[in-house]
Amino acid sequence: MARAYNFCAGPAALPDDVLIQAQEEMSDWRGVGTSVMEMSHRSKEFVSIANEATQDFRDLLSISDDYEVLFLQGGASAQFSMIPLNLLGDHSSADYVNTGQWSKKAIAEAKRYCDVNVVASSENENFSTVPSFEQWNLSKNAAYLHYTPNETIGGVEFDYIPEVDVPLVADYSSSILSGPLDVSKFGLIYAGAQKNIGPAGLTLVIVRKDLLGKAKDFTPAVFNYDVHAKASSMNNTPPTYSWYLAGLVFKWLKKQGGVSAIAEVNKRKASKLYSFIDESGFYGNPVEPRYRSGMNVPFTLADEALESVFLKKADEARLLNLAGHRSVGGMRASIYNAVPESAVDALIGFMANFEKEHG
Amino acid sequence: MARAYNFCAGPAALPDDVLIQAQEEMSDWRGVGTSVMEMSHRSKEFVSIANEATQDFRDLLSISDDYEVLFLQGGASAQFSMIPLNLLGDHSSADYVNTGQWSKKAIAEAKRYCDVNVVASSENENFSTVPSFEQWNLSKNAAYLHYTPNETIGGVEFDYIPEVDVPLVADYSSSILSGPLDVSKFGLIYAGAQKNIGPAGLTLVIVRKDLLGKAKDFTPAVFNYDVHAKASSMNNTPPTYSWYLAGLVFKWLKKQGGVSAIAEVNKRKASKLYSFIDESGFYGNPVEPRYRSGMNVPFTLADEALESVFLKKADEARLLNLAGHRSVGGMRASIYNAVPESAVDALIGFMANFEKEHG
Repeated sequence: MARAYNFCAGPAALPDDVLIQAQEEMSDWRGVGTSVMEMSHRSKEFVSIANEATQDFRDLLSISDDYEVLFLQGGASAQFSMIPLNLLGDHSSADYVNTGQWSKKAIAEAKRYCDVNVVASSENENFSTVPSFEQWNLSKNAAYLHYTPNETIGGVEFDYIPEVDVPLVADYSSSILSGPLDVSKFGLIYAGAQKNIGPAGLTLVIVRKDLLGKAKDFTPAVFNYDVHAKASSMNNTPPTYSWYLAGLVFKWLKKQGGVSAIAEVNKRKASKLYSFIDESGFYGNPVEPRYRSGMNVPFTLADEALESVFLKKADEARLLNLAGHRSVGGMRASIYNAVPESAVDALIGFMANFEKEHG
Repeated sequence: MARAYNFCAGPAALPDDVLIQAQEEMSDWRGVGTSVMEMSHRSKEFVSIANEATQDFRDLLSISDDYEVLFLQGGASAQFSMIPLNLLGDHSSADYVNTGQWSKKAIAEAKRYCDVNVVASSENENFSTVPSFEQWNLSKNAAYLHYTPNETIGGVEFDYIPEVDVPLVADYSSSILSGPLDVSKFGLIYAGAQKNIGPAGLTLVIVRKDLLGKAKDFTPAVFNYDVHAKASSMNNTPPTYSWYLAGLVFKWLKKQGGVSAIAEVNKRKASKLYSFIDESGFYGNPVEPRYRSGMNVPFTLADEALESVFLKKADEARLLNLAGHRSVGGMRASIYNAVPESAVDALIGFMANFEKEHG
């Protein structure tokens, strides 16, 4: 095994220990004689894997019985449709906060199903901040308020949870499990797995039970939260292997001490990297310090022409996937839970050397 | 590795060679330094994996450029909604053939979007046959005709492709790649991966290009074939690891000689097992011989009380997952491509011994 440091924004790095265990169990899960991939989702073995993963996830975020936890397909992009389809009920509008590219995608899809009131936007600030809560233009009849606590592309993260009177809906794809989270403040939380949870093809939804059962009549059955809740996410065959891998990640996270312990590591990682960038005249980060993401650290070079050299040299140093999103360019280091502190140290060392050579 | 013989209906057995290769490449794909699971779906490495898998699938079934091949999430159950949502266009009705539990599910979901004309049904025959084509009550204004070439639960398989004037839509989940298939006769073919393709969480759709672009306006973006076609199935993050594994299965199948060669093996496997059942007075299969499935072989014991003993002893003999579907009971041996002929031989040997002891 010659593992590189992987700063990919997603699908992202997984813990070495998880991959090693998955590798060992690949062809024969604990003497059963088959791979987890080859098990019926209704077999007692897989049901035990699924239940344990679900319980571990509940434990990690202290999710109460007021909430269902669903293991779904379709990615966070499916949630952009499922949320209005399931939560609008008799309402004809919903509130959305626009803090970046993922907010915009959620808004665009919601507009196909209801009037979208954009309560606040940082687009004029090039998504480098979070609009001040005091200035949000909350509407009176919204079915819910949707926001994106961490914008993967812009590297902008809320440092508070908005307090609103309607169900709060959040796309936690890129920051779930990075630290403690008071789930009781939310109506619905969703997260594509491919950052802090597991492989792509799985999406987790935490939804308050009283919000279920109001789906529009043209909602596809597999887009109906209530259908999945009633079937423990086994209305139809779930992505079994991804569910199993997510379970291994949850066990790994528990072993690290849970979300509080990993939050400390994540804070150190982010703080080191931002400090280095700020102290350098060579690198820059455009985000208002208070709202800088703990997971996704975009940065620029003083000389844009050096970007391709930087990326090539970084690749050679086995520091992978540091290019920014194709929509914004520049660099980005995603430093999710599974990216160890040593990776950040190596990156800073590399950046310092590169500055010496080219600065 | 102590692999058992796995007769699971799905998620089903994968080829040993595929699992071994996946195991070897788990933590570091060809020296890249990351798992396939940890690659951006837009990286050159993953795009090459995806393109190669797609091309191999096209090669295996000789799919012409008139068709798009899509790698989607949601399972075949998502297709039950996507098909009417995308193909109805200006039509208000569609034709469906009812030959079993999966036909019924497709019909139930389609009814939510259009008038469903059930052109023929074998429900009164307890789904033990395929209704004679001459008696199908085809309608004049159907947008398409949907049928299920192989019913996984009932073990009933069409031995012909219906000739109709409207686009022919087929749920090939449990028999795709089991033999040659004239794709040009179809408007759309879909298949959940977890039988003959790869792990659960991936669904393949082959759709004629001229049928695209007619989705209803309330169709969720990720349920729109055209959206996926325009983005080469990367509108949003696809289930990358499942796509990779499907690619390994396609390579394996090519190595076996492709679909014509595997069809010969499959015919031998099915023929042996049905012959043994028919010659026994102890076991039975209720399906009209002409329409017996080459993939799913349900069978009963003369004495129902012996079923649990049979299953227990089979488990002990490492012949796994022989229970029939929970909706119908009895036994079922699913003998997909990845179930080797030696597994069928071992099963027949076991069944013969069991009959001797208990018959």
